[in-house]
Amino acid sequence: MSPHPMVLQCADVLARWREERPLVHNITNYVAMDISANALLAAGASPAMVHAKEEVREFVAISRALAINIGTLSSDWVESMHLAATEASTREIPWVLDPVGAGATSYRTRTSEALAARRPAVIRGNASEILALAAGTAGTGGVDASHSSDDAAEPARALAARRGTVIAMTGSTDYITNGVRTIAVSNGHPSMARVTAVGCTATVLVAAACAVEADALIAATAALVFLGLCGERAAEGDPGPGTFRVRLIDALAEVTPDDVLRGARLIG
Amino acid sequence: MSPHPMVLQCADVLARWREERPLVHNITNYVAMDISANALLAAGASPAMVHAKEEVREFVAISRALAINIGTLSSDWVESMHLAATEASTREIPWVLDPVGAGATSYRTRTSEALAARRPAVIRGNASEILALAAGTAGTGGVDASHSSDDAAEPARALAARRGTVIAMTGSTDYITNGVRTIAVSNGHPSMARVTAVGCTATVLVAAACAVEADALIAATAALVFLGLCGERAAEGDPGPGTFRVRLIDALAEVTPDDVLRGARLIG
Amino acid sequence: MSPHPMVLQCADVLARWREERPLVHNITNYVAMDISANALLAAGASPAMVHAKEEVREFVAISRALAINIGTLSSDWVESMHLAATEASTREIPWVLDPVGAGATSYRTRTSEALAARRPAVIRGNASEILALAAGTAGTGGVDASHSSDDAAEPARALAARRGTVIAMTGSTDYITNGVRTIAVSNGHPSMARVTAVGCTATVLVAAACAVEADALIAATAALVFLGLCGERAAEGDPGPGTFRVRLIDALAEVTPDDVLRGARLIG
Repeated sequence: MSPHPMVLQCADVLARWREERPLVHNITNYVAMDISANALLAAGASPAMVHAKEEVREFVAISRALAINIGTLSSDWVESMHLAATEASTREIPWVLDPVGAGATSYRTRTSEALAARRPAVIRGNASEILALAAGTAGTGGVDASHSSDDAAEPARALAARRGTVIAMTGSTDYITNGVRTIAVSNGHPSMARVTAVGCTATVLVAAACAVEADALIAATAALVFLGLCGERAAEGDPGPGTFRVRLIDALAEVTPDDVLRGARLIG
Repeated sequence: MSPHPMVLQCADVLARWREERPLVHNITNYVAMDISANALLAAGASPAMVHAKEEVREFVAISRALAINIGTLSSDWVESMHLAATEASTREIPWVLDPVGAGATSYRTRTSEALAARRPAVIRGNASEILALAAGTAGTGGVDASHSSDDAAEPARALAARRGTVIAMTGSTDYITNGVRTIAVSNGHPSMARVTAVGCTATVLVAAACAVEADALIAATAALVFLGLCGERAAEGDPGPGTFRVRLIDALAEVTPDDVLRGARLIG
Repeated sequence: MSPHPMVLQCADVLARWREERPLVHNITNYVAMDISANALLAAGASPAMVHAKEEVREFVAISRALAINIGTLSSDWVESMHLAATEASTREIPWVLDPVGAGATSYRTRTSEALAARRPAVIRGNASEILALAAGTAGTGGVDASHSSDDAAEPARALAARRGTVIAMTGSTDYITNGVRTIAVSNGHPSMARVTAVGCTATVLVAAACAVEADALIAATAALVFLGLCGERAAEGDPGPGTFRVRLIDALAEVTPDDVLRGARLIG
């Protein structure tokens, strides 16, 4: 049986980012900075963290992709996020939004919505965050995992269609949708939820993929398949969460395009 | 011989926080954020880092405990710390103060004292910091370890009585006191002092314990016994400090209430 | 064959900092804070991160060395960096500048040059950053590695002479120069470039060395030989970048003055 055509594209995205080593500009939260930078570096991209309003536009201009994550937002940082997002959109540099905690406070929901309006290539969040953006309403409740796949992905699909962006909603199954087509990725491992900022790390890997692949649906899928496979490899032998995190970084350097071809599990 | 009654309570605190997975709100320093978040997650609680003044009160309201740590303080953050502490006290949400470096600069001592006046459930610090608060004087000197236990704990006891709070003064022996009763915990390992922010990690674990246990003396004791046992486990085989840190996070996920029953070493 | 006289001095620097455990004050970037603090602690120094303008001068005064790193600069932090650098220079407390990203944006180049004018004992950067400062021009281009050693080090030497400081330009070969004498260190391993903030870690170790050694040429050389040897040890068995980082921290605690005597590879 030949692999799903999207799988070939995912493997190709990984091969290209390893070859091109794109500079990925991150405006992310304090908790995620260390793991995000190390993940990008291990995976073969080139990370930078720059947030001062005096330089953020100039730095966007020399980067190939941008990730904006509101995890530990404050008003100064939000100002820089808007400057960077606007510059990236103007220059057609792809950027990815991570609306951490959208729905948990009104400030987060409002900031996420304002940034979502600036045309990110991808919005990557968990179900709670994507539902908050989809509903335009605040709420911290979880999502009923008993929904069928279609039901679970429907708010993401509608949000993608409304915003004209790709939505990557991650969880035990990841859904990636451009409003027309929806991909479900079932790679990954529960241990990924036992280490902080693995979701934030997914976001910066999506940005790295967008640097080398213009179709954001393919780029986001490639990044999530890749990270999921790394999580599976890191979880072998069922290590504790400290050891798992170390091995996850190791795996980001080890997993190859061939591993993606063999191990990707996606539908759609 | 049946265990000390407090040991049963400590084991019970750990069992309850693992079951309830309380949301712990942290306003902590940049160095401690990564290890604090991962420690809480590994130990079975649910961490969040939120500091913007626009949202900090709203976030306190949905949290079950709050930890405030002044390690890398600046005036904006101090403003948020006061907003959060006031909101927590008003709502009777337990909060824990970590007065990092109190005594080292007048700004730290002043900020620590102002926060200490807002009725934290627990103040967790090393001997130098607790003495600075107890004396109301600045000074960076260490503490003479040759003091007897009673002597060493006396300033902490007096501070607890004056402030109406629990003081957890950590070191090779940890003293936890509510001004009336003082517990000495001798769990732990010297390697814990070779990794940065382990004291800060103690603070967030005390907050997690306060989320599930109304008696702050019991809660702080439970958290320090638990962390000490994790340190002992992580130090087996005498690893270097990098490996020790990884194993410490592993141990936080592994150590059980039964391990607490068997391994707690406390007096008082 | 007896070792190079500088090798004896490098071993002695390490022995002294292990004995004296100098307090090193860091104003560094968010990504580097965790690894810098853990590296200093593992290596036997005493780290502190303090940046508020209300206290930064007071803290400089009780420290034995200062490291200033502009990696995630913003205007508030730059103000504190100037306060700290001025205080350190006034008190003759040695301080080290890490001009992260000089040349990448005009804000970084300008800030680096303004700080470089405040008499750091050492400026530690990669070739691109040192060239940006040497040229007084912005530019993000890499350096042609095919240059001979002398050619590669010449801009660093000229900058050292012009600024009256020591320049430590790190890469596969590290060059340390006071404008008159230039040392080339070939310790280290390519894996060091696969972990974020290892360059920033070099900077804080240089600061620790300056705390115990008045000749900044010797101090910087000692720190870079030591870190290079730790990198070599951590790379044994060719681990992934996650494991390498853990072992690097272990090695910082393990490598001894005798290892320096046996393993240092320097010329000049």
